[in-house]
Amino acid sequence: MPAFAESEYRDRIRRTRERMATVGLDTLVVADPANMNYLTGYDGWSFYTPQCVVVSLAEDDPLCIVRGMDRNGGLRTAFLPPDRVLGYPDAYVQASDRHPFAWVAAELDRRGLGRGRIGTEQDVYYFSPRAQAALETGLPNAHFADASLLVNWIRAVKSETELALMSQAARIAERAMTAAYDAIEPGVRQCDVAATIYSAQIAGTAEFGGDYPAFVPLLPTGIGTSTPHLTWTDEPFVAETATILELSGCRHRYHCPMARTLYLGTPPAAVRATEEVVLAGLQAALDAARSGATCEEVEAAWRRVAARGGVTKESRIGYAVGLNYPPDWGEHTMSLRPGDRTVLEPNMTLHAILGIWGDAWGIEISECFKVGPTGAETFCDFPRELFIKR
Amino acid sequence: MPAFAESEYRDRIRRTRERMATVGLDTLVVADPANMNYLTGYDGWSFYTPQCVVVSLAEDDPLCIVRGMDRNGGLRTAFLPPDRVLGYPDAYVQASDRHPFAWVAAELDRRGLGRGRIGTEQDVYYFSPRAQAALETGLPNAHFADASLLVNWIRAVKSETELALMSQAARIAERAMTAAYDAIEPGVRQCDVAATIYSAQIAGTAEFGGDYPAFVPLLPTGIGTSTPHLTWTDEPFVAETATILELSGCRHRYHCPMARTLYLGTPPAAVRATEEVVLAGLQAALDAARSGATCEEVEAAWRRVAARGGVTKESRIGYAVGLNYPPDWGEHTMSLRPGDRTVLEPNMTLHAILGIWGDAWGIEISECFKVGPTGAETFCDFPRELFIKR
Repeated sequence: MPAFAESEYRDRIRRTRERMATVGLDTLVVADPANMNYLTGYDGWSFYTPQCVVVSLAEDDPLCIVRGMDRNGGLRTAFLPPDRVLGYPDAYVQASDRHPFAWVAAELDRRGLGRGRIGTEQDVYYFSPRAQAALETGLPNAHFADASLLVNWIRAVKSETELALMSQAARIAERAMTAAYDAIEPGVRQCDVAATIYSAQIAGTAEFGGDYPAFVPLLPTGIGTSTPHLTWTDEPFVAETATILELSGCRHRYHCPMARTLYLGTPPAAVRATEEVVLAGLQAALDAARSGATCEEVEAAWRRVAARGGVTKESRIGYAVGLNYPPDWGEHTMSLRPGDRTVLEPNMTLHAILGIWGDAWGIEISECFKVGPTGAETFCDFPRELFIKR
Repeated sequence: MPAFAESEYRDRIRRTRERMATVGLDTLVVADPANMNYLTGYDGWSFYTPQCVVVSLAEDDPLCIVRGMDRNGGLRTAFLPPDRVLGYPDAYVQASDRHPFAWVAAELDRRGLGRGRIGTEQDVYYFSPRAQAALETGLPNAHFADASLLVNWIRAVKSETELALMSQAARIAERAMTAAYDAIEPGVRQCDVAATIYSAQIAGTAEFGGDYPAFVPLLPTGIGTSTPHLTWTDEPFVAETATILELSGCRHRYHCPMARTLYLGTPPAAVRATEEVVLAGLQAALDAARSGATCEEVEAAWRRVAARGGVTKESRIGYAVGLNYPPDWGEHTMSLRPGDRTVLEPNMTLHAILGIWGDAWGIEISECFKVGPTGAETFCDFPRELFIKR
């Protein structure tokens, strides 16, 4: 029961093999769980032990290699025939004297795939220096190349099926944000609001449930809004403070993130002034995000508005988004920032997020969108404003 | 507002430096977020971009190096003085032409720490081959050694303060398991039960809230119980099937996991027979887990009971547990399996989990415990049985 038709996986594999041929790879070892899922449908919380999908120019079907106890999970979620799903012995798990990728190397060698030019993803979360070393030691006749982002770039333009999942994720994100707005009151504990958000994210709608987002809901409040990635505490929300809410809906691992800022009370003039610049600048960026524009042009549209409003922001204002696993829903390909000359194509999907963090308070407002012919087409239908609760 | 007193962090750093001196390291680059937290208190969902804590024999205070926008998070959560928390420029984030660890290398060099023998954690989730290469390229005068698990082993024996947090996590785990038992009924969607579990995990108790566990709640059901790590779907629970529940409470990143199995209806005789062996074998393992015993002796106690009952299990029956971040609450040090001759010490904490997965059904029952003088002392007080709901 993979999430997509076999033909869609076959098309993804075909494009991957074309790209491999272009860059001169015979074999590609994919350890990023999002890329493994993209190519085969494999889906499970098993990426805490080493695993990979192997795509070869010499073989039609990829191999999916997981820990032995997860092989049944591969049979149930990947589109592959059973003989293409392999499980390695448990003695390799978290052992000081052997590594699962030594087992993978021996298996590739046995299948005649241990030669030629092998690409590995050398800058992903779940492929360590020791994993790379185990492959190199086990396959002395192979040449290794960094193939980071090869599959990620193939993921950049979404199919209609993928876009439909992101639209479902948007419905969930809207519900979760509404639940957060309803729950936040002075005196309510942050953890209780986080529980409410989680519940809305996972229960989803009556028509479809939610998958776990790749980030926990972030809800920095008060002085905490001076930085984006602190998680909740037991402390209560306090009147006359701002709370940033960054959360996502998720559907079959596809995300639609959204950030908003809520103010309990009457926001100071400086916060309102920043909100005004952020909203105008975000709109300018969304208008600029049409197919044919570059990522840096989208950022420049924001920057012009920000400069007029006296707001500066050092960090990027957005990134590619879609299919992913913790700890990140971003796809690590393009970023909306100076120097990124990636040309936007129709149905690329990005998250434009205007986060301004001062030393005492911050504000975030964002939109997740697909690239259209005349600009961004946003997934969520949700008031784009500082939400004031008195 | 770190979770522990400064003296406890200082003691952890002292023991780390002693160990560094023993193995001949001048500097240690710690990229595992659990180890970063252990040494400094730093806590945030920022490990999706490269970051590290640097411990040097030449300097008293560690350095905490994070992405620029997360520096305020470091100031708020780490015990360190402000000048020991550094933020790197955002242009290094997910860029193809530069890497954050190149910035780290330059910073270490500037501070005179770019020489001698530098340990890096070469088999953790958030330190990639490219990160290692960036350090090696940037610090050509240094010698690098794999220091994986150096800090993890220091974490193995818990302080009274840590044990108190794990006891709080146990209270949350009991509530979450009770909520799951109450919610699972034929016809109820899996996602709705997952939402209920999450809500209980995060809201915690009236006295203390919950932190996010390092695993999502796992609730494989029916044929899904043949493998442990598939996540929930939108499908409803079905009468006359088993559901495995593996979940944890979490408190300031300290976990107390628990696994149980629920049967909707009347369990087949084979399931009851396996339950009987699992319960007797788990008790035998817990009785054997006294200080002075080895990990493999604990497993052997299970294995003797299992053999008599005709049950075989290839995979390990437990592992060290405590402080961690997604995707794993295990500490990656000792495992309860043949060949692991680690000698148990008082107040080491482990999760003994008897998971038996057949092709059509499975069962899991577990206990999280600390090592005591006469055997395991379990954290949870929860009926240890196959829970039958008719």
